[in-house]
Order: sequence, then C-alpha cells, then structure tokens
Amino acid sequence: MRKALGTHVIVELFDCNPNTLTNKEYVERALLRAAHESNAKVVDHFFHQFKPYGVSGVVVIEESHYTIHTWPEHAFAAVDLFFCSDDIDLERAIEVLREEFQPDRISTVELKRGLLPDVSYSFNNREKAEVVSDL
Amino acid sequence: MRKALGTHVIVELFDCNPNTLTNKEYVERALLRAAHESNAKVVDHFFHQFKPYGVSGVVVIEESHYTIHTWPEHAFAAVDLFFCSDDIDLERAIEVLREEFQPDRISTVELKRGLLPDVSYSFNNREKAEVVSDL
Repeated sequence: MRKALGTHVIVELFDCNPNTLTNKEYVERALLRAAHESNAKVVDHFFHQFKPYGVSGVVVIEESHYTIHTWPEHAFAAVDLFFCSDDIDLERAIEVLREEFQPDRISTVELKRGLLPDVSYSFNNREKAEVVSDL
Repeated sequence: MRKALGTHVIVELFDCNPNTLTNKEYVERALLRAAHESNAKVVDHFFHQFKPYGVSGVVVIEESHYTIHTWPEHAFAAVDLFFCSDDIDLERAIEVLREEFQPDRISTVELKRGLLPDVSYSFNNREKAEVVSDL
C-alpha cells in the first residue's frame, strides 16, 4: 500500500454559536488550544480580524498547519487540519473545536496528501526525516 | 443551486525540481508571486525552514489563504489555494506554481467550502459581505 506524506482533514462547522466566531482573540485561543491539546508543536501563528465580521487564522505547526476562517453571519467556520505525524490526536482536535464553537453539525473529510509510489517506509514527521536521511 | 462561501483547491505537485523546494526564500517568493499574480490581496505571510530540508509556508490573503509544504527528498509539494472571491485567477496561480517548481505532474481537486442552504445570493468576498450586512 502506498503511504502518504501527510493527512489533511477538511472540517466544516455548521450552525455554530455565532458569538464564538466574531472575535479574533477568542478564535485564536480556540485554534491554538486545538493545536496544543492534539499534540501539535506550534511554530508560529497569525490571526486577522475582518470588518465587519469574520476571522482568518493560521497556525503553522512542525507537522504542517491548522487554519480557520469564520463567517459569523452564517454561523459557519471552515477548518483545515493538515499534519504529517502519527502523534497528532485528530479526535482531540475536533473535540476542542466542538467545545469552542458549539456547532450543531460537523462534516469531516480526510484526504491523503503526497501519495507517492516510493514512500513505503514510515515517513511521518520532520524529525523522522532527519533519521532517515542519515541511513 | 446552493452557493458555497469558498473555493478550496488542493494542488499536488509531483516530480518537481528538488532544488526549487529546499530554500525558504525561494519558496516564499514563489508562493507570494502566485498570490499577487492571481489577484489575491496579501494580508500577511510566514515561512519556516525545516532541518534537514523542507519548507512550510502560509500566505493569509483577504480572500482566505494559500499554503505550501515541500518535501525536496520526494520532489513533492502540497499546495492549498483557499479563496472566497470570484476575482481570484486560479489558472494563473497554478501556472505560476508550474513555472516556479517545474513539476512533471500536477493534480488538482476543487472543493466547495461552506455549502449552506441559505446562501443563495452572491456572497463572494468580505467586501461584499459588508454591503449585504447593510441591506
């Protein structure tokens, strides 16, 4: 079986509590919490408040990235969880999103990124890459 | 027909020129060029060099985000182009990626994000959102 370099989970949060989607600081704290509690190693993050409403945010992690875009006027948020490590606790990340944004419905689609025929060994994160390169 | 809040294009660049994938400055310049030439309005950007190799980068745009993760050792890059504006020239963005990273093969998958039953009007970017909110 071909092994993917990364896992990319598309998360759609429908019918959220709109009050949780309007404020940059709240959204930032929530996505960072999802990152930390799912074992992601945060490298940097950037959040932007749109006028009149809406927040965009990216968290660069050693394992790739988490992003969020909110539409409070539609009670909707689009989240991406992209990671290349078996250590990421995906279920925990989604549970934190559920707690923070209180959606009535969540849709998730999991994509494999970098499905390469020559990736047959365990190539799960950047640290392991370093080991592999020394072989 | 239901209208989506955003368009998310998953771009996989296979068999790139590995020399184009190793250097943070090169990758940063390339993705920013893709953003500018596809009419995206750049809000901020952040790029990170991994050791021993690989680059992660995010460009936050007013229309959402572009991201890239490179695996020079596999001549592979994973790019995401997420935008909520009809003004984005997707074909131009992909053409710039092709020029900069010289892949032998590109796979693209286009996802609609935020497919909501109540979005029947043209709700394509944050500026239009402001107009709609005043109605």
